Amino acid sequence: MACLSCLLEYGTVKIIVIRNKAVGSVFRLIQFLIILYVIGYVCVVRKSYQVKDSVISTVTTKVKGTGFTNISGLGAHVWDVADYNIPPEGESSFFVLTNMIITPNQMQSSCPESQAKNVSFTKYFDLPVFDQLNASGHITLLKGIQTGLCVNYSETVKTCEVLSWCPLEIDTDLPENPLLAAAENFTVLIKNTVTYPKFNFHKRNILPDVNSSYLKQCEFNRITDPHCPIFRLKDMVAEAEEDFQTMATRGGVLGILIDWSCDLDFPEHYCGPKYSFCRMDNKNPENNVAPGYNFRFAKYYKTTDDVETRTLIKSYGIRFDVIVFGTAGKFNIVPTIVNVGAALTILGLVSPVKSAVLGLGV
Amino acid sequence: MACLSCLLEYGTVKIIVIRNKAVGSVFRLIQFLIILYVIGYVCVVRKSYQVKDSVISTVTTKVKGTGFTNISGLGAHVWDVADYNIPPEGESSFFVLTNMIITPNQMQSSCPESQAKNVSFTKYFDLPVFDQLNASGHITLLKGIQTGLCVNYSETVKTCEVLSWCPLEIDTDLPENPLLAAAENFTVLIKNTVTYPKFNFHKRNILPDVNSSYLKQCEFNRITDPHCPIFRLKDMVAEAEEDFQTMATRGGVLGILIDWSCDLDFPEHYCGPKYSFCRMDNKNPENNVAPGYNFRFAKYYKTTDDVETRTLIKSYGIRFDVIVFGTAGKFNIVPTIVNVGAALTILGLVSPVKSAVLGLGV
Amino acid sequence: MACLSCLLEYGTVKIIVIRNKAVGSVFRLIQFLIILYVIGYVCVVRKSYQVKDSVISTVTTKVKGTGFTNISGLGAHVWDVADYNIPPEGESSFFVLTNMIITPNQMQSSCPESQAKNVSFTKYFDLPVFDQLNASGHITLLKGIQTGLCVNYSETVKTCEVLSWCPLEIDTDLPENPLLAAAENFTVLIKNTVTYPKFNFHKRNILPDVNSSYLKQCEFNRITDPHCPIFRLKDMVAEAEEDFQTMATRGGVLGILIDWSCDLDFPEHYCGPKYSFCRMDNKNPENNVAPGYNFRFAKYYKTTDDVETRTLIKSYGIRFDVIVFGTAGKFNIVPTIVNVGAALTILGLVSPVKSAVLGLGV
Repeated sequence: MACLSCLLEYGTVKIIVIRNKAVGSVFRLIQFLIILYVIGYVCVVRKSYQVKDSVISTVTTKVKGTGFTNISGLGAHVWDVADYNIPPEGESSFFVLTNMIITPNQMQSSCPESQAKNVSFTKYFDLPVFDQLNASGHITLLKGIQTGLCVNYSETVKTCEVLSWCPLEIDTDLPENPLLAAAENFTVLIKNTVTYPKFNFHKRNILPDVNSSYLKQCEFNRITDPHCPIFRLKDMVAEAEEDFQTMATRGGVLGILIDWSCDLDFPEHYCGPKYSFCRMDNKNPENNVAPGYNFRFAKYYKTTDDVETRTLIKSYGIRFDVIVFGTAGKFNIVPTIVNVGAALTILGLVSPVKSAVLGLGV
Repeated sequence: MACLSCLLEYGTVKIIVIRNKAVGSVFRLIQFLIILYVIGYVCVVRKSYQVKDSVISTVTTKVKGTGFTNISGLGAHVWDVADYNIPPEGESSFFVLTNMIITPNQMQSSCPESQAKNVSFTKYFDLPVFDQLNASGHITLLKGIQTGLCVNYSETVKTCEVLSWCPLEIDTDLPENPLLAAAENFTVLIKNTVTYPKFNFHKRNILPDVNSSYLKQCEFNRITDPHCPIFRLKDMVAEAEEDFQTMATRGGVLGILIDWSCDLDFPEHYCGPKYSFCRMDNKNPENNVAPGYNFRFAKYYKTTDDVETRTLIKSYGIRFDVIVFGTAGKFNIVPTIVNVGAALTILGLVSPVKSAVLGLGV
Repeated sequence: MACLSCLLEYGTVKIIVIRNKAVGSVFRLIQFLIILYVIGYVCVVRKSYQVKDSVISTVTTKVKGTGFTNISGLGAHVWDVADYNIPPEGESSFFVLTNMIITPNQMQSSCPESQAKNVSFTKYFDLPVFDQLNASGHITLLKGIQTGLCVNYSETVKTCEVLSWCPLEIDTDLPENPLLAAAENFTVLIKNTVTYPKFNFHKRNILPDVNSSYLKQCEFNRITDPHCPIFRLKDMVAEAEEDFQTMATRGGVLGILIDWSCDLDFPEHYCGPKYSFCRMDNKNPENNVAPGYNFRFAKYYKTTDDVETRTLIKSYGIRFDVIVFGTAGKFNIVPTIVNVGAALTILGLVSPVKSAVLGLGV
């Protein structure tokens, strides 16, 4: 009975009420600022009362368009998606070939190494000298295994002979304008499905109120068609404040950012993809070793004599990386208590601080 | 000495003890509910006393199986992994070809454009009309560069001639049943290693208590073999509540979700992969532009006259995306203090609230 | 006026000051420990006063180097990047071929299945027996579609005939030393651009104080060149405490971890890439089904009779996964209030606890 009585009593602190207009008004002002902060910043701006979840996303892409080149020695050539999209998979990162250096009919044999840029090879030199140069890092042109011979590269120049895919690629004369300039008018359809697993929320970038006939002929435009999932390559590059033809010449990486940030407490708010575009690699020529984006690939053939030949293509182009990000937030009691509790603690501190100032406290 | 004395004294608030059974029991009830919430929800359900880390993961995959097709004009053909897995790398996202439209022996030349579906071309028409139609977006069939001529497409139809890879692909007659129906019995071995860097925790999806002979012949089954890392494609699609043959006809994307959520405070708890499967693309035909999943690739050959030919394959199939996620939690003093501190603040508020109710407070 | 007066008054609790050296010193010690914890651990170690952001990153890679093999039956062969980098794209995950089993001149036809390892086929057996063995899972060698015939595999052995790409691959005799041993001296240039969107922070792994001529010949070394973005494959494998030649024989996955953790409150602190390397797959042979990393790909050719042939390559090699991670932190008022508030709550608890101990409280 004594115990029960003990349980049912409770303590409250004894409060001394002070009537001092100056101290009181400062005290209320500070309280007001803290409450303003809690409501304004913690709740409205940062939404700290919500629990958050990160997006899980799937992207498929499909490029459309046909280009035409007329390269000397190769003749007229029409390029379709199977030719310029390498490797040919509709993943979240896709590559569109825009410029290239083609070295056809390479075969495993021996041929003279091409001339180094910054070293004079005009007279016959002995191999150890070359090896020294090479070891010192000044010549990095070696594209094969040295046979130990020096042979005529041109009438006036002798270079080392190498075992390699011959003839060697001469990658110094990249076309100044992209060969596949028509790539700027190619379009890409991006299909993106997102999930917020904590909230069991699923959505697509093809919004439910969009109909099929619209989708067949629409094209993304930030003003007139912000929900169309079909993008013209030129427009995306322009949105990133780059020039397509300039970027296409040496290649680059363009980020297609899809922001799925959503406030799920307000279903009437727009919760859909927000597209933005930015160049991901550095276009700045200073300090820029190997600028742009390129890689080499080869198509392999066999001659009638069963000898393997290949066409080596140093391909420059734009890699488009679809990057999906975003967090969704929904009201939850835990972060609310944590944030309100902390704010109230600070609020409670005002009183002792004032007491200390007035010399009434400890 | 005065200073030391000052340091060693301390203040405690003066508590007034009130014995009121009604107020006291309400007060104790509220305290009880808050403590229940702190223990039950914050600690047990949400584990807010833990610091969290996100998973870093590596996945390799290896598909096994052999299929057989007998396509008219191409003859019997056995498909192994090098044929149907495109591109051929064992990454976390892999593609299995199940259906296709093959256009063999394409060559760069000129040929009549295929007939547009919704426009009648039965009479000879002049090119500007076609260009108008094309500009209005109604015809999107152009698969090459127009030569400016109109030629016989069939006995009754004339269409525009284009420079392209000829003959053009006719992609309207996709086989109704997947050509590589046997793909449902292919299996895939998924090797997944995860790391939680904050906790220096490493684990594989091949659990340490599993022996090698078991792994050579096991097959994942949610009931009988939940730890086997070898999955039959059919079973994974069935777990996602889809029909393999239906999905294989037009292609799709299947997510293989591996959940590595772990509570590292309890080493006796199961901390291993939890597999689930779901279809990631939209199978719903409404609003579904370009449903399914397909892409085009080509195999390039050279004739004896050194002319390039190719076999174009519009390949439909299932892309499997292995998505590894999860957070691990471990007790840490910082989140504990933050959460307990906040909860205690709320607890401390009960007393002033009650005081205010009774008119004893400010 | 009464209301205003009410607003401008404030309450402060009545404090009883107790002078007890023993209790006082324990009380001050606990306070000191809590303040030490708040300043030392919460602020300095965990930086809980900061708001955090996760990195968004783009990676391009470019491998350089030439290797040479002399495989019996294939002759001397020089390998360049287009040959050994499969698929040939400079993405964040790239593969370098180091060892292989080549099966040239495969054609769609029928041939005897290769001999199973653990089953004796020395006498002519009837097919149902084989099917039973097969169904029981003991034979998993079937690499084609059975024709129903049993034919001579060698002089003493008969096996089942299969329709397949013939001759079948014999993948049991993997070279003990990697064929492309020279791969250890290949180098890779990694270009990595990161963004912290919350703080509008952008940076590259090629630091601004590095000049172009240095980049042309530098090579990463943890001591002498920690900022060079060009890595020798051998060095990366050695940093992961593995032997390149051993790893190259059966293949593997090497993680190139780039840590971009930054404290943006102190711009004078180093905020740049911190490289580390670790093997991501399990090298341990126990419980290791299909150890290492390999996949099959094929190069397709056509004979003069228009028959498709292929060279199947079971390729072993090292997949390098560039994994970029990191969080940046910057001072923000919300987490500061949450953490300080919580710590102060705990601090405030010391007084009641002491009171309770002394029998002065409830």
